[in-house]
Amino acid sequence: MISGLVKEIKQQVADLHAELPRNDLVVWTAGNVSARVPGADLLVIKPSGVSYDEITADRMVVTDLDGNLVEGEHKPSSDTAAHAYVYKHLPHVMGVVHTHSTYATAWSARAEAIPCVLTMIADEFGGEIPVGPFALIGDDSIGRGIVETLRDHRSPAVLMRNHGVFTIGRSARDAVKAAVMCEDVARTVHIACQLGRPVPIAQADIDSLYARYQNVYGQEPAA
Amino acid sequence: MISGLVKEIKQQVADLHAELPRNDLVVWTAGNVSARVPGADLLVIKPSGVSYDEITADRMVVTDLDGNLVEGEHKPSSDTAAHAYVYKHLPHVMGVVHTHSTYATAWSARAEAIPCVLTMIADEFGGEIPVGPFALIGDDSIGRGIVETLRDHRSPAVLMRNHGVFTIGRSARDAVKAAVMCEDVARTVHIACQLGRPVPIAQADIDSLYARYQNVYGQEPAA
Amino acid sequence: MISGLVKEIKQQVADLHAELPRNDLVVWTAGNVSARVPGADLLVIKPSGVSYDEITADRMVVTDLDGNLVEGEHKPSSDTAAHAYVYKHLPHVMGVVHTHSTYATAWSARAEAIPCVLTMIADEFGGEIPVGPFALIGDDSIGRGIVETLRDHRSPAVLMRNHGVFTIGRSARDAVKAAVMCEDVARTVHIACQLGRPVPIAQADIDSLYARYQNVYGQEPAA
Amino acid sequence: MISGLVKEIKQQVADLHAELPRNDLVVWTAGNVSARVPGADLLVIKPSGVSYDEITADRMVVTDLDGNLVEGEHKPSSDTAAHAYVYKHLPHVMGVVHTHSTYATAWSARAEAIPCVLTMIADEFGGEIPVGPFALIGDDSIGRGIVETLRDHRSPAVLMRNHGVFTIGRSARDAVKAAVMCEDVARTVHIACQLGRPVPIAQADIDSLYARYQNVYGQEPAA
Repeated sequence: MISGLVKEIKQQVADLHAELPRNDLVVWTAGNVSARVPGADLLVIKPSGVSYDEITADRMVVTDLDGNLVEGEHKPSSDTAAHAYVYKHLPHVMGVVHTHSTYATAWSARAEAIPCVLTMIADEFGGEIPVGPFALIGDDSIGRGIVETLRDHRSPAVLMRNHGVFTIGRSARDAVKAAVMCEDVARTVHIACQLGRPVPIAQADIDSLYARYQNVYGQEPAA
Repeated sequence: MISGLVKEIKQQVADLHAELPRNDLVVWTAGNVSARVPGADLLVIKPSGVSYDEITADRMVVTDLDGNLVEGEHKPSSDTAAHAYVYKHLPHVMGVVHTHSTYATAWSARAEAIPCVLTMIADEFGGEIPVGPFALIGDDSIGRGIVETLRDHRSPAVLMRNHGVFTIGRSARDAVKAAVMCEDVARTVHIACQLGRPVPIAQADIDSLYARYQNVYGQEPAA
Repeated sequence: MISGLVKEIKQQVADLHAELPRNDLVVWTAGNVSARVPGADLLVIKPSGVSYDEITADRMVVTDLDGNLVEGEHKPSSDTAAHAYVYKHLPHVMGVVHTHSTYATAWSARAEAIPCVLTMIADEFGGEIPVGPFALIGDDSIGRGIVETLRDHRSPAVLMRNHGVFTIGRSARDAVKAAVMCEDVARTVHIACQLGRPVPIAQADIDSLYARYQNVYGQEPAA
Repeated sequence: MISGLVKEIKQQVADLHAELPRNDLVVWTAGNVSARVPGADLLVIKPSGVSYDEITADRMVVTDLDGNLVEGEHKPSSDTAAHAYVYKHLPHVMGVVHTHSTYATAWSARAEAIPCVLTMIADEFGGEIPVGPFALIGDDSIGRGIVETLRDHRSPAVLMRNHGVFTIGRSARDAVKAAVMCEDVARTVHIACQLGRPVPIAQADIDSLYARYQNVYGQEPAA
């Protein structure tokens, strides 16, 4: 029963990886998407160092929420520990995405949050996109940095200092969407700042845009 | 009779949506194209939150000029009220396009008009590309902002502050062309301004270029 | 006899137009490539306002060297007069290309030549890429501006002020290559200048690179 | 026996050339990939001035480590002498790549090393990406510049002044990867520097990231 569900999620995660190069968020084998397996302490993620052309549902790997391999013939992504930590500590998160997308990573290299100066940022992120700490790979430092930054924040995206972006979502697709939007607004605000200062948006307007977008936008989910 | 016309317009509007990602004007599901149904108080527009891969003529929706759904199985774009307002108040407008294209939106975030420093801007826009007011979605504020800015302006494009671009045209294709050209000149002028100041073009030359382009360029319409 | 040659050139010119969007040099219907018909006072060029998807050899038009239509069902490009003037006054030129490619046009908007600070610029352009005058379309002003700027210059490219780029070549393919290289170096030098000053290359080194490249690079022409 | 091996390497080198335009590292015919033939003083490289569409295994050429043509119907790339010099003087190098990729070349035009301000730079390059000398093509100056700069450096990439990038690898694929990553970080750090100063990464952290990445990342090589 769970194996049928896992198979389906492997397909979704494999398909969603195609959105990363398509939206110019990754080069070479960098970047990864994962999804929580609902009702189990498991996640599905990309294997390490595999190119985007070679990603198939069969090659996806399953780990527990400590990042230990449960199923799959390849080593999991070297970022698995960070994904696993997020699922373990934020129970509502069903999908996680990691990229080094250019403009968002440039903000992270200066440890600067992306200010909320576009209605699209208010809609999707509910305010500025925050910066997380510098953290070395190898233990749970990255995971902790993500969770501590996003726990009390509207934003589904965090700019990890000198590193790149992590996004979360109520589905893996939502996390991918947040990664796409994060790079798009990172680029637009960067370009706006190159020739002067963007006009701020009043906090009340940000709140109003965020509330509407979270409740009204898009089609009803299929019954 | 009108239903045959509506069907044809749905096809045109669906086809024109493909120009938005092709010209890098949109990410994810953002952006939309609409067309007025000639001889009726109706418009055809994209449904809300539908991805560009899934756009077909059948999925397009029809609304009246207050934005109420008249035909279609999906909820209309959340920007429909703005499109409808434009058709209601500018009778010569047959097509409307909305994007958050990067460079144009960056100018809008600083509330700066794009100066007419390229012959291509004189040709297509007849002068600077103006900035419209900040306006919240949800009532007719955005529509009013567009109409009040463009009513007495040669430019078919307006940069809505902290938001994005709306363009209008004598056909939906013309509005798409204006959206493509607007982003192109927004980018070129931005880049020119990064290393100094563009040389201005004399008003008499702008007028002469605009007059020629509106009357001479392109093939005669098919008989 | 000449009609077989003209047919062949129409095919070449149609095929070369595909390089313009492929190399991101044009949007919408902007930009054009022409070729001289050897041994005749004729040129082959793109029709006006036709999109890149619709370009076929059959649709190419033939004009004389005053820009008058000789053969073809469509109106010639509105830039035909400029191309024709170049062929008439520079007998060694066999191909001409016109684009509004972004970075080159940005240099033209500031009326700044692109300095020769890359070996690739020395190779292909033999020195800086010069700026031509501001000129209105409609008479031979643009053609004269191109010819007067390039006549005594190594560079096959000229940045026409507030307008865009014209390139020339010993073949239409060479002119397209020059247009591609011009945008590439315009972009690289722009980016180099954003964070400081490029290191100059000594004139003797420029001369040496140019001489070698013109004589040594590439395969021998097919016998 | 060696001819079977050479045939296989020609195929690999031809295939790897496709990564250069795919990753936007080259325009027109610029750029080249080579591989050493293991156990022989030979290398396989792209012919001169051939477009990326026309590259096939059959068209690749074989030279000795002085750059003299050994096998092939076309003239070798004009950069062959530089590749050959590297193989001759750095015996562990099995692949070499040369590009004029935009952002890396912009750093080279200012003779500025790319600082190690991203974890991805620490991972792949182990520190800053260094600048090599200005060198004219035609003798072994470029090769010497590459070898002298990279011999005592962790970085597999060198920014040759006013020219472009050379990368080396334990395989031709590794050298291509280094070329892709070099342009990616050149762009991200450039953009970070446009609006302020990136936060430095401590040397101990750079060392730790580099050591881990060289030993842990990716799948085990196939047995």
